[in-house]
Amino acid sequence: MVNRKVRKGSVRQMEARTYIEEHRDEFVAALKEWLSIPSISADPAHHGDVRRSAAWLADHLTATGFPTVEIWETAGMPAVFAEWPAADPTAPTVVVYGHHDVQPVEPREEWHTDPFAPVEQGDRLVGRGASDDKGQVLFHTLGLRANLAASGASAPPVTIKLLVEGEEESGSPNFAELLKRHRDRLACDVVVISDTTMWSADTPSMCVGMRGLTDCQIDVYGSATDLHSGSFGGAVPNPARELAALLAGMHDADGHIAIPGFYDDVVEISERERDLIARLPFDEEEWLRTAGSAAVAGEEGYSTLERLWVRPTAEINGMWSGHTGAGTKTIVPRSAHAKVSFRLAPDQDPLRVQQCVRDYVTANLPRGLRVSIEFGGPGVRPCASDLDSVGVRVARDAMSRAFGTEVLFTREGGSGPEADIAEILAAPLVFVAVGLDDDRIHAPNEKVEIPLLLKGAEAIAYMWDGLAAQARA
Amino acid sequence: MVNRKVRKGSVRQMEARTYIEEHRDEFVAALKEWLSIPSISADPAHHGDVRRSAAWLADHLTATGFPTVEIWETAGMPAVFAEWPAADPTAPTVVVYGHHDVQPVEPREEWHTDPFAPVEQGDRLVGRGASDDKGQVLFHTLGLRANLAASGASAPPVTIKLLVEGEEESGSPNFAELLKRHRDRLACDVVVISDTTMWSADTPSMCVGMRGLTDCQIDVYGSATDLHSGSFGGAVPNPARELAALLAGMHDADGHIAIPGFYDDVVEISERERDLIARLPFDEEEWLRTAGSAAVAGEEGYSTLERLWVRPTAEINGMWSGHTGAGTKTIVPRSAHAKVSFRLAPDQDPLRVQQCVRDYVTANLPRGLRVSIEFGGPGVRPCASDLDSVGVRVARDAMSRAFGTEVLFTREGGSGPEADIAEILAAPLVFVAVGLDDDRIHAPNEKVEIPLLLKGAEAIAYMWDGLAAQARA
Repeated sequence: MVNRKVRKGSVRQMEARTYIEEHRDEFVAALKEWLSIPSISADPAHHGDVRRSAAWLADHLTATGFPTVEIWETAGMPAVFAEWPAADPTAPTVVVYGHHDVQPVEPREEWHTDPFAPVEQGDRLVGRGASDDKGQVLFHTLGLRANLAASGASAPPVTIKLLVEGEEESGSPNFAELLKRHRDRLACDVVVISDTTMWSADTPSMCVGMRGLTDCQIDVYGSATDLHSGSFGGAVPNPARELAALLAGMHDADGHIAIPGFYDDVVEISERERDLIARLPFDEEEWLRTAGSAAVAGEEGYSTLERLWVRPTAEINGMWSGHTGAGTKTIVPRSAHAKVSFRLAPDQDPLRVQQCVRDYVTANLPRGLRVSIEFGGPGVRPCASDLDSVGVRVARDAMSRAFGTEVLFTREGGSGPEADIAEILAAPLVFVAVGLDDDRIHAPNEKVEIPLLLKGAEAIAYMWDGLAAQARA
Repeated sequence: MVNRKVRKGSVRQMEARTYIEEHRDEFVAALKEWLSIPSISADPAHHGDVRRSAAWLADHLTATGFPTVEIWETAGMPAVFAEWPAADPTAPTVVVYGHHDVQPVEPREEWHTDPFAPVEQGDRLVGRGASDDKGQVLFHTLGLRANLAASGASAPPVTIKLLVEGEEESGSPNFAELLKRHRDRLACDVVVISDTTMWSADTPSMCVGMRGLTDCQIDVYGSATDLHSGSFGGAVPNPARELAALLAGMHDADGHIAIPGFYDDVVEISERERDLIARLPFDEEEWLRTAGSAAVAGEEGYSTLERLWVRPTAEINGMWSGHTGAGTKTIVPRSAHAKVSFRLAPDQDPLRVQQCVRDYVTANLPRGLRVSIEFGGPGVRPCASDLDSVGVRVARDAMSRAFGTEVLFTREGGSGPEADIAEILAAPLVFVAVGLDDDRIHAPNEKVEIPLLLKGAEAIAYMWDGLAAQARA
């Protein structure tokens, strides 16, 4: 089935592959040049480098052939926008999202090589940003050139709009505003995100969802000062005890979240996706070793991967109260505090969840205590791709051709701004990415597997043809 | 009833009172001299002063007439022992306990006068140790002299053994050893403790019990490091959540302690003591203002004073886990920690309670977490006096005569080494004290009410006669 559909109007497989292999060294050399620019958006000392990185990418995109290349300024660091219209004006339009800023390098002393002097070690390229996200942005230029080379055309089969932001590693503070400002120019039929990972080099996969996130701090206040537990203990409310009860009451005995209304908008995972997740070669023992944990835990009725990917959580990130130093201090503490974050599943709305948590806390606080609950902003919405959407089907077929094997589905337990992109641009999301979980993104000695970047380019070469063919069909 | 019993063989009331009034200034002058010695046992820089304080007291007791006065060395600071045998060798023997060391004075800047330059302000004497405990030790010498003056005898009606330790404010680390070493010389029929308070200047009272204490630190360990809650949240146990559940589970909805076996040895308060406690002029609103708390709380079925005095507690003194700084850190913390102390009611045994807590924690910890629980030593045993014992009856009658009004009963919610004294010396405890809760002991501007010290002396003058008379009866 895969081959039948994709071959309609597709580029010739051997020619795309040959083009990519012949241009491997040129591609790696360009990537190394880009990786040499320390575009750390979180560090004001490197903001000049982030601008240099944007300029480098703009030049590279121009050299690739994009007729339109622009630096888009924001209140912070600039994004790069490039557009290459399809020859056929009725062809679909794709927005490709990535980012050109990188994480800080601390702890610097744990790097075995200079993070900004990228080196090839066999098939690997080591350097900050190699996987997250410069390598995954750059395979799009190689893939597009391969598409053109294989088809012999001078314009792509779909209109490509590349949007590469410069503040993703700083929480994308100006990105939603940028999207809204340029909503018209970013009009599209599908959004391709290349900033995630696949299951493994042997098991290519596509991400089809990410959890959302909202977090809060709960402060419980009792007496005006810490009280001597001999003089007052047992007869005044203890904020630490009542906070512990509030926190403990957030789950029932089966690990379900017991906050009223919390699950109201959660979409149950489909049996089809469950089956596909179950087919992933997940080694729970190995995963536990990675976690450094002695046992799995979580919600009854769900597998570990389901708990990580499709189920919401309520997680205590921190708590503190009273005496935390050495020795004994027999007090009733005056206050107690906790930080709690909630990973959200589609279609939970962070603001609605915030209201549920607020109501739960207010309803369960005993007399005589004061409580404050503050949320750290509006939160991040969860997102999910429809497995039957055109974008997901075409991307999966393209990945299958590139990798020569079936492509499975994963999700991400973490959270990103992707839901905002889909919402603002009113287009479905498709994640096409070739990073690996062991790429050490955000950590010392980040690397990327060069052969996987080339497979990513190849998949993109097929995918643009596939989208155009689907539109014609 | 009070008068009939006490008057048998009693000293003449007017003569005792007159003696005390005539010697007031001399008594206050001596106390001021003693208070000038900064005998802070917790501060090594003042250990020479603690020794000077012991020497001063020894001299003063010799001058009072005690035929035997000794400095008893310990591994730390010295105690003072003095003995004055009764003329009648069959008369009862009393050990009087107090201490000559004092609390540190920090915050020094909050004192309005020099803490070691005691000053009279009307009827008050202000200075560190005025109430806790030098004033309350010294009224015994005045009381004994008044007894002798009123009866015209040259020896007391009971054998008096004064034991004044020098490390009470440092937790009495060597006191049990001292008691055991001198057990024979301290043989007695009753132990009188003068180191507590009465209800108020208008409502004289006797303490008839103190809560015990044991405390622990609970450490819950999960993964080897903090884990990213996006990558692991929902599928590994969260130590903070499980610790919150452990802590919350220590109480049921009615405020009873839910640790199995915890109440096994708790003696229910008698209806008689309940009635007596209920007669105390307790102003709950005023008490809440002192606590700075908006509401009372605690165990169902008990009044505030009962909760404070006769019921055990489980109080979280501190807890901490994960991220406690500013902002958000979406982690599953690697560990979580709490300090919990338990106030104990008669006849709970701290070691048995420790075992109950240990069993509870072990039984309730989920799979995949490690827990450690460490107790801060063997704990402090609770103690209670029998309201119908000879010592309590005689002391209450003596207090009633001195104050000219009925004497009620109180307890202390706090904990001290008194149970050890009773246990090691195998004698019942009687608390005779005239401190007030507003004496600011352990705080800046400690004071004592001089008229109450004189009433204490007067009560003691009657009490020794009363004990002798009871023994003869």
